[in-house]
Amino acid sequence: MARRLKDCGFTVAAVYDVHAPTAAALATELGATACTTLAQVTASADLIFTVVTDDAAQLKVFAPTGDSLLTGAAGRIFVNCATLTPGVHVEVERRARAAGASSLEGCMASSIPQARNGTLYLMCGGDRAVFDQVRPVLEKLSGDLRYIGPAGTAAQVKALVNMVMNCNTAALAEGLGIGQALGLDLTMLREVFAQTGANSQVLKTDGEDMQNRAHDCYFSGAHAAKDSSIAYQLGLDCGLNLPVAKATKEQFDRMVTLGLGGLDKSGVAELTFKGRHG
Amino acid sequence: MARRLKDCGFTVAAVYDVHAPTAAALATELGATACTTLAQVTASADLIFTVVTDDAAQLKVFAPTGDSLLTGAAGRIFVNCATLTPGVHVEVERRARAAGASSLEGCMASSIPQARNGTLYLMCGGDRAVFDQVRPVLEKLSGDLRYIGPAGTAAQVKALVNMVMNCNTAALAEGLGIGQALGLDLTMLREVFAQTGANSQVLKTDGEDMQNRAHDCYFSGAHAAKDSSIAYQLGLDCGLNLPVAKATKEQFDRMVTLGLGGLDKSGVAELTFKGRHG
Repeated sequence: MARRLKDCGFTVAAVYDVHAPTAAALATELGATACTTLAQVTASADLIFTVVTDDAAQLKVFAPTGDSLLTGAAGRIFVNCATLTPGVHVEVERRARAAGASSLEGCMASSIPQARNGTLYLMCGGDRAVFDQVRPVLEKLSGDLRYIGPAGTAAQVKALVNMVMNCNTAALAEGLGIGQALGLDLTMLREVFAQTGANSQVLKTDGEDMQNRAHDCYFSGAHAAKDSSIAYQLGLDCGLNLPVAKATKEQFDRMVTLGLGGLDKSGVAELTFKGRHG
Repeated sequence: MARRLKDCGFTVAAVYDVHAPTAAALATELGATACTTLAQVTASADLIFTVVTDDAAQLKVFAPTGDSLLTGAAGRIFVNCATLTPGVHVEVERRARAAGASSLEGCMASSIPQARNGTLYLMCGGDRAVFDQVRPVLEKLSGDLRYIGPAGTAAQVKALVNMVMNCNTAALAEGLGIGQALGLDLTMLREVFAQTGANSQVLKTDGEDMQNRAHDCYFSGAHAAKDSSIAYQLGLDCGLNLPVAKATKEQFDRMVTLGLGGLDKSGVAELTFKGRHG
């Protein structure tokens, strides 16, 4: 994303990474400062993008005390791009406002090539006026830019996207697993799926990989487990009965338990094909 | 299918239906004989298509004794188009051979308009030579004609198609159900699903209907329950662990138990949206 913004003529003033050599290399490439504290990032820029691993990391970089992006943050705008529990975005917005800053969630439903090329699928949540203010920058990052609603709602939508995607993935793995156990030609079976009511985006992205056990990671089983868990919990909190989401979440949890969480989500097929990890 | 074959210049000699007036009306329309016994059907035609409700009905029309399509069946070819347990197709083939006849399964993954227009998605199982013999007729019925393998294999593929489709449907219902409970705009949510990894054929066919509670029946919840059960049992017989297929099958079973089995499969959303049948 920093490379893309630089390409588009923006000044990338500062970069930060928990792995300092990564920040240093990128800073050299972009003519930016490699910051060693979060406060230094905030001091260096007007608009700050964060992409962290999980809820805890997001709350840590916006900590009320200690080294924090909130130090000297008055007037700054933060755009937080990690997939998080929706409530965390609400809390970050609260903390940012208390520091005189603004925050926006910028949920991405795409991956590294789209970030590099400025074609991210970007769903934003937060104050509409803040969104409109940073829109010209976001449009350079995004092929599809969408304002969803107040803080947390983009994360809700993202969690639901990934939950449905994960369910479809786990179901496909079961369908292909049965097909293989029956001795059917899986290439034929995938073709028939693609031409009928069984078709899905994950059939395109994951079907052949399940057949060939090619689980190089684009979106890990561990991430699938996390996102399915977020969505499932949102539904439980609403009092809903969600048996398919639950069964799917438990499959991806099982990938993690079996040490397969680092495989791509297509690796869920390792649990459903006869003679694999069963 | 009879209308289509007539349109294509074939002689439709005889029609039969358990509801006699239906057969009589169609016979008048097509200049065919409305048969009142199964034996009369076999006596009237060289090539006989059957479309029945379930396994029991299929075995009944091919009963070894009593009124049966097998009476005087030597040299006849039967094409059986119902979605059945794969083993039933194997048994029907055995009985047909014993009577000096041939049989083919012609599994359809489409509905009434495709039957009328000759654009069925038709997957055939049985003896390859029999398939080649009736191919010219089948091609007039079908937009996509595919030979799958020996008797029962087309039914296996069909069951897997519908199982995966049903899982995707139940998962979509849960995703939209959570979205509604969270107060998200479901039209927006469906658009996002369509543009991301959550996309699927059932999103196109059932998503809006779930939102609008428009469950006019194209493919019933009861049929979904039946097909999911067939596929799930195939997998269990192979010793597989299939939690998503199981949870899905149980959802469609629940539709039936609640008296909702006559709704379209999109009606599974009635079980997952807050304030519906929950």
